[in-house]
Amino acid sequence: MELLSSTKSFGGWLKRYKHESLSVKSDMTFAIYLPPQAETQKVPVLYWLSGLTCNDENFTQKAGAFRKAAELGLAIVCPDTSPRGTDYPNEHESYDFGSAAGFYVNATVEPYSNTYRMYDYVVQELPHLVEANFPVTDKRSISGHSMGGHGALICALKNPGKYQSVSAFAPIVNPTNCPWGEKAFTGYLGEDKATWNEWDATLLIESASERLPLFIDQGEADNFLVEQLKPEALEVACEKAGHPITLRRQPGYDHSYYFIASFIDDHLEHHSRALS
Amino acid sequence: MELLSSTKSFGGWLKRYKHESLSVKSDMTFAIYLPPQAETQKVPVLYWLSGLTCNDENFTQKAGAFRKAAELGLAIVCPDTSPRGTDYPNEHESYDFGSAAGFYVNATVEPYSNTYRMYDYVVQELPHLVEANFPVTDKRSISGHSMGGHGALICALKNPGKYQSVSAFAPIVNPTNCPWGEKAFTGYLGEDKATWNEWDATLLIESASERLPLFIDQGEADNFLVEQLKPEALEVACEKAGHPITLRRQPGYDHSYYFIASFIDDHLEHHSRALS
Repeated sequence: MELLSSTKSFGGWLKRYKHESLSVKSDMTFAIYLPPQAETQKVPVLYWLSGLTCNDENFTQKAGAFRKAAELGLAIVCPDTSPRGTDYPNEHESYDFGSAAGFYVNATVEPYSNTYRMYDYVVQELPHLVEANFPVTDKRSISGHSMGGHGALICALKNPGKYQSVSAFAPIVNPTNCPWGEKAFTGYLGEDKATWNEWDATLLIESASERLPLFIDQGEADNFLVEQLKPEALEVACEKAGHPITLRRQPGYDHSYYFIASFIDDHLEHHSRALS
Repeated sequence: MELLSSTKSFGGWLKRYKHESLSVKSDMTFAIYLPPQAETQKVPVLYWLSGLTCNDENFTQKAGAFRKAAELGLAIVCPDTSPRGTDYPNEHESYDFGSAAGFYVNATVEPYSNTYRMYDYVVQELPHLVEANFPVTDKRSISGHSMGGHGALICALKNPGKYQSVSAFAPIVNPTNCPWGEKAFTGYLGEDKATWNEWDATLLIESASERLPLFIDQGEADNFLVEQLKPEALEVACEKAGHPITLRRQPGYDHSYYFIASFIDDHLEHHSRALS
């Protein structure tokens, strides 16, 4: 791992690293916020998965999360949103596919299948790296925004016992049934829609072997609410399956980091309770 | 005024406007955060002056200030850092002169003297506009970062009674005696250094007719500390003149908005006490 920068924030340290990833076969950058408590003890880790167009810096610069993380003694790890450094057909042409749009799945369609394995990276490789190199416990939680909110949901639903808690801001809850998800899944997983189902949070609810409560905030003035996000689909699936969900509809809030910043403290407190 | 965007944040609203400025003879963009209290009563205003390379968005996105502003019932107004839309010789060639580097002075050298009148804009025109169009009182405070920290200091020192309080993060305290200031003042004010003195906070301290306390945070790991910022010059001037100053040297902190975010709550509380 190569340390790119180290910045003091709320008594703790925000560090950015570059490392060679085995999962995605390229150099990957991630950020870790270590709260002041990490100087004398091991702290639990929240993984934050960002949305389309983002890298690790959107959350660290705009979410306003470190004040509360420092208070609670919570580390926060922010990976990038796709592999970088390749130049596949259509990889850099649109904001919702390819670079910065990895959707936290393991691609099966060539050539994306060679490197777009963000699910393996986030669920396996990154926690292994983080737990081997930083003063953290093996207690993990996961959260994210939009594409990353969905990423957090599937990581938790597909890995019972791995995360103590999960939350999301404005997640794409049902990607097999919205334009963003259909475009990405066609490109990464192919035309056979049956193969998509294991990567869709709403469809995973029924068979979830662990009933980890879902904690979700959704802005009611979010431009993407009706066409892309559709939280009611997840709500219905949870009701059917008896899966606990708290879905807060926040009047007036949009899809931006101003929305995330307004409610991030509630999410950090939710995770901290589960992690302690 | 043309409303560019309106975004809910911590129960209040962040609004960006474009308007035709008489002081700087161009369209100017500014942001105003109105806390929830502004829906039912008039609230006081903190003016925030940003540093080199910035516009109104650096503070609104990265400072993490709106949580506390909403709690305290404080509006925050963020102007741009220079006029825009002209194309003078050398105006866009460097980060520390011309566009995004107006230094909050009134230029006297042609052609900059035609439009680079950021002092008039910030001290006169913008408060007039804000107080005529928003639910705010005529109680004002002022703060800023780096170039804008110095801007806040001179606005307060040159206008006794206009501001209830002043603070700064990592201000350039003595621009007549550092490379950033010397370059900017030569370009805006000319070669006669005697004309520079009225725009230098450290030199204004001796004759200040109002002893408004200065509240300053400075990171000790700030890359610009020794060559550009030199807070000790201001400290010495204040000691000589009996001008109250609180200069907090914060170990480990750099020049970034991560530093500002870490201490912005203290500044907002400082201003709120003076404004109430």
